[in-house]
Amino acid sequence: MAQPKNIAILGASGYTGAELVRLIATHPMMDIVALSGERKAGMEMRDVFPHLRHLDLPSLVKIEDIDFTDVDLCFCALPHATSQAVIKELPKDMKVVDLSADFRLRDPEVYAKWYGGQHDALDIQAEAVYGLTEFYRDDIKNARVVAGTGCNAATGQYALRPLIAGGVIDLDDIIIDLKTGVSGAGRSLKEPFLHAELSEGAHPYAIGGTHRHLAEFDQEFSAIAGREVKVQFTPNLLPANRGIIANVYVKGDAQTIYDTLVAAYADEPFIEMLPFGTAPSTRHVRGSNYCHIGVTGDRIAGRAIVIAALDNLTKGSSGQAMQNANLMLGLPEEMGLQLAPLFP
Amino acid sequence: MAQPKNIAILGASGYTGAELVRLIATHPMMDIVALSGERKAGMEMRDVFPHLRHLDLPSLVKIEDIDFTDVDLCFCALPHATSQAVIKELPKDMKVVDLSADFRLRDPEVYAKWYGGQHDALDIQAEAVYGLTEFYRDDIKNARVVAGTGCNAATGQYALRPLIAGGVIDLDDIIIDLKTGVSGAGRSLKEPFLHAELSEGAHPYAIGGTHRHLAEFDQEFSAIAGREVKVQFTPNLLPANRGIIANVYVKGDAQTIYDTLVAAYADEPFIEMLPFGTAPSTRHVRGSNYCHIGVTGDRIAGRAIVIAALDNLTKGSSGQAMQNANLMLGLPEEMGLQLAPLFP
Amino acid sequence: MAQPKNIAILGASGYTGAELVRLIATHPMMDIVALSGERKAGMEMRDVFPHLRHLDLPSLVKIEDIDFTDVDLCFCALPHATSQAVIKELPKDMKVVDLSADFRLRDPEVYAKWYGGQHDALDIQAEAVYGLTEFYRDDIKNARVVAGTGCNAATGQYALRPLIAGGVIDLDDIIIDLKTGVSGAGRSLKEPFLHAELSEGAHPYAIGGTHRHLAEFDQEFSAIAGREVKVQFTPNLLPANRGIIANVYVKGDAQTIYDTLVAAYADEPFIEMLPFGTAPSTRHVRGSNYCHIGVTGDRIAGRAIVIAALDNLTKGSSGQAMQNANLMLGLPEEMGLQLAPLFP
Amino acid sequence: MAQPKNIAILGASGYTGAELVRLIATHPMMDIVALSGERKAGMEMRDVFPHLRHLDLPSLVKIEDIDFTDVDLCFCALPHATSQAVIKELPKDMKVVDLSADFRLRDPEVYAKWYGGQHDALDIQAEAVYGLTEFYRDDIKNARVVAGTGCNAATGQYALRPLIAGGVIDLDDIIIDLKTGVSGAGRSLKEPFLHAELSEGAHPYAIGGTHRHLAEFDQEFSAIAGREVKVQFTPNLLPANRGIIANVYVKGDAQTIYDTLVAAYADEPFIEMLPFGTAPSTRHVRGSNYCHIGVTGDRIAGRAIVIAALDNLTKGSSGQAMQNANLMLGLPEEMGLQLAPLFP
Repeated sequence: MAQPKNIAILGASGYTGAELVRLIATHPMMDIVALSGERKAGMEMRDVFPHLRHLDLPSLVKIEDIDFTDVDLCFCALPHATSQAVIKELPKDMKVVDLSADFRLRDPEVYAKWYGGQHDALDIQAEAVYGLTEFYRDDIKNARVVAGTGCNAATGQYALRPLIAGGVIDLDDIIIDLKTGVSGAGRSLKEPFLHAELSEGAHPYAIGGTHRHLAEFDQEFSAIAGREVKVQFTPNLLPANRGIIANVYVKGDAQTIYDTLVAAYADEPFIEMLPFGTAPSTRHVRGSNYCHIGVTGDRIAGRAIVIAALDNLTKGSSGQAMQNANLMLGLPEEMGLQLAPLFP
Repeated sequence: MAQPKNIAILGASGYTGAELVRLIATHPMMDIVALSGERKAGMEMRDVFPHLRHLDLPSLVKIEDIDFTDVDLCFCALPHATSQAVIKELPKDMKVVDLSADFRLRDPEVYAKWYGGQHDALDIQAEAVYGLTEFYRDDIKNARVVAGTGCNAATGQYALRPLIAGGVIDLDDIIIDLKTGVSGAGRSLKEPFLHAELSEGAHPYAIGGTHRHLAEFDQEFSAIAGREVKVQFTPNLLPANRGIIANVYVKGDAQTIYDTLVAAYADEPFIEMLPFGTAPSTRHVRGSNYCHIGVTGDRIAGRAIVIAALDNLTKGSSGQAMQNANLMLGLPEEMGLQLAPLFP
Repeated sequence: MAQPKNIAILGASGYTGAELVRLIATHPMMDIVALSGERKAGMEMRDVFPHLRHLDLPSLVKIEDIDFTDVDLCFCALPHATSQAVIKELPKDMKVVDLSADFRLRDPEVYAKWYGGQHDALDIQAEAVYGLTEFYRDDIKNARVVAGTGCNAATGQYALRPLIAGGVIDLDDIIIDLKTGVSGAGRSLKEPFLHAELSEGAHPYAIGGTHRHLAEFDQEFSAIAGREVKVQFTPNLLPANRGIIANVYVKGDAQTIYDTLVAAYADEPFIEMLPFGTAPSTRHVRGSNYCHIGVTGDRIAGRAIVIAALDNLTKGSSGQAMQNANLMLGLPEEMGLQLAPLFP
Repeated sequence: MAQPKNIAILGASGYTGAELVRLIATHPMMDIVALSGERKAGMEMRDVFPHLRHLDLPSLVKIEDIDFTDVDLCFCALPHATSQAVIKELPKDMKVVDLSADFRLRDPEVYAKWYGGQHDALDIQAEAVYGLTEFYRDDIKNARVVAGTGCNAATGQYALRPLIAGGVIDLDDIIIDLKTGVSGAGRSLKEPFLHAELSEGAHPYAIGGTHRHLAEFDQEFSAIAGREVKVQFTPNLLPANRGIIANVYVKGDAQTIYDTLVAAYADEPFIEMLPFGTAPSTRHVRGSNYCHIGVTGDRIAGRAIVIAALDNLTKGSSGQAMQNANLMLGLPEEMGLQLAPLFP
């Protein structure tokens, strides 16, 4: 039997880090050999995340204390800006799946505009592959560095990429109204993420076209269309932990739109097309790597809604990262990722 | 001091009935003299709704056992169809605030189309006034029968009526993406409303232009515009009990839109315009009769979002009914309705 | 008509401060004339608590900028230790209702033991009256300074005081298993209070007899019994915002226990005894000043459970404070506090 | 490689049935060959439980339409009473794991008392083994019929069995205050389980020693002790879907109690002892087969709390059933059950 791959996770003390550990725990061909957590260096993972206490895991250490010699692949679950600084110091042949925003945007000026700082690792940016597996699969297989997508950006792209590529919708009138659970914000201590503030509430945020994931939409949709495409995008915060659901309002023929998506995703192991006229729900993908997509028309002819739902921490982040890592390591793409959603 | 008005509530064993009782409990000029609940006749309200157990209330009875002689006003919180059958048997001069859909639609064919049955009280339909207080205030003061609006219908109208009247938005491209708590579904025993099904989830429902409140939007917006106006409307179910928030996507100048709304609502006691660029949240209106409205533009010129939030059981239903009842009884419109929202 | 009383709230930027504002908003005889918030001085209340935006309130200021000349009563909703430092600098004849722990404990050594610091305002401690209204009513009427109780401490005392006084339970075997919503922790930014951490979870905390409210239980129960009484007390955190419910396990005759409580609370406006064998629920008291109490026996003879539920922010804190303020100001005790619970 | 075992699930349209499917989905040695659902016969599982739509599953059928010839083991997730009627008609050599209460109680009179009906399959009752794996492991390996335990009953027993066996606690003064999520009630349409009723609330139920799982406590604890042991047990409903946490109040030396549990569970793959003085939480076991146990003393000498947490649908029901099925089929006990908990 083949030897399991040695995995390091940098930034393991956040939610995406913990989600990687959860997934690797039952992955038959990955072993965790190093975990970093700057402020929590010296602690055991079971004290940072008691739900992982049954696992035999390495202690959290500082990145500089990791011996990368036998590491086959490194997940980097650090904040943007920190991520590029860390990755450029890693061994030059180290395979890296980065979960931050640092290598998603090909144009450094666009990066600077949305993320407010000079990019400092442009050579790595140049070689990095955008990590939306279903659309960059071949490049990812051969990539050294893969840039995980934004979780909202992934959701919107699953709904729209085949439609833009197929020329079946009006490119100048796309509205994405997206709802997201709070775990996408990470474990950060901010007032709006307190239970007492969020529970029983719902509200849009980053309104008016100011959410950073718009940069990914712009880059990807314009590249597919061969012209500038700008979508209108409003995220809303839900009183829930996991899950993203996007209502994407488009102009085009609903049945054609549905058929286009069905054809595009026919062989995809993690994209499930629902019957026409059926809406997905976040609760039906929770904790899994599956993305559910539904399409319906409207009483107004020529209008349609495409609805896509996924788990922001799994398919939108750590599950996607695992899927990409499988490809980079020559393992079956689905390995360790076929966990069924947790419901109820 | 003036004599309090005698109030009867028909259908008091549902959530809107209980909400009326909650509001009347601290209303200085209303006394509850009769409560009906067909299946729960003979029970005490404290056994149906233990949160009301500190109140001294009449027992639930069947409608036919109510003596309407001294009743000044009757709230009717019954299901549609039942409501018209009951109201047409009430004394002919009885003031009635109906919370069902039975008298909202002026065209009986439209009623039949959306609610699936012949209307059976067309004379009362003809005299009924649509209960969106801010826009029908004078008619309501003199009405015998007022038809409470749909809770979603109210929310969308608060965002849009002044804009349609003012001619400041494109009438052919209005999209309402609305999120609602589950209490709007009432106390009905249906699988999607179980805690285990709804908690941690969110999903659209009645997709494709099939939600009944579209009939109210069509009627009201077309009347204001003097031409047919059809909006695209998608409701979404939230894992929360109370609250509606509508993201209304319109085409027009954002500042003009904001100014139009500010002017329209300048003197309204229950409509709060937020600063430009600010989004409301359901948690800031919970349990109150206030509606918060925010406006923002988009990075795409000529686009704007109007966001309206209210509590479906209060401003969207029983609070609205109380506001109308105050007007019908010659009482100050705000009386008993200035309870501050419950947060957290 | 009498002149409304002028009220100042110190520490208005926390949840108990906001709750005081909510209650005073519909109190017919109190006007808010000053609000303090050290770190938020200069801000408007509507920006700190958007749910209060319909109210015309003074801006938040620093305490030293308040002119206390015409203030009739001051609510102090500051953290312990800060509270005593502030109160000792107030005008010597100022009526004060303190919501902190600073003046609850009569023995300075007990205070030092549980709260970890020397008490610095012992003269005020000496004159302060313990604020459990139903049991200190006459003293409160004439008090200058009233010390609001702990919210958990209030809940346990409502269940137990008449039983200890009546000698109807075993004093050496009392167990309180109490569940509380998260708003009792205030608006503080701590990891366990994040939505992503708390939602869908429940767990005990401060286990092993370490919760500070034990100091109040010890003081009060021992005073009533005329001997030392030590209870065993375990609080549990609920995935909910408001509400405390205590299961109090006692040894004694269940019917006698019930009768004793019924007799004790017969004339109390805010204590509701449920029928024997019925359990209260936090959702039936939310947002109100009512406390619901139920009693049942067990299949094991000589055992009983007393179950008490209240809203920690209202009856457990700010509502209690208002009730005491009414007494101190010569107003009817119930004034402004008869709001019905918000359900659902 | 060995041939996977053929599995049938009777009663697959409820939550425990769906949980079995979820677990088997990634079990390497079990194939689902038949699924029954009486009222939903003819439907696809994906329409009953959309979260399972990525799986290739047999359609739901009526039990009489299942060919049991090649079935290796049958999970029976039916209501009690129905369960015994079905199981006695199965092939006489069919291995069965029953999740109902029908075969838990060895004394038919006790069954009749608590479950209100004559037992109708006493011969099967006589051969059935009680399914608390850790304590009946050897019997389960050789059993034909295993009776899954009550989920609350399992939780309490994990806390108490080694302590009763070890004689380290007072047998006459044990109090279990247990909190449970709502999924234990199944998908049944009852008012208290609606989101609008349960959310933001918490309350005890089945108070006074009336919960049916007391029959299991009585049977098991008395058998271990060799004398009658009766515990006091109060369950509380939480506003959460999954998770049970029991605070077990005992009299004995806390450190001895801790050491006894540590020794008892030293080799158990699914029981995790926390460090002394640490409390578990339901959110740290959600979706997993792990049980977390903590112990602490009290400021009152001779008192201790044992706190046990597990997921009612997994370790408390379907995960336990899988663990037993593994043993009955000669598979490794942990196979397919090492999924890490889902957090957040």
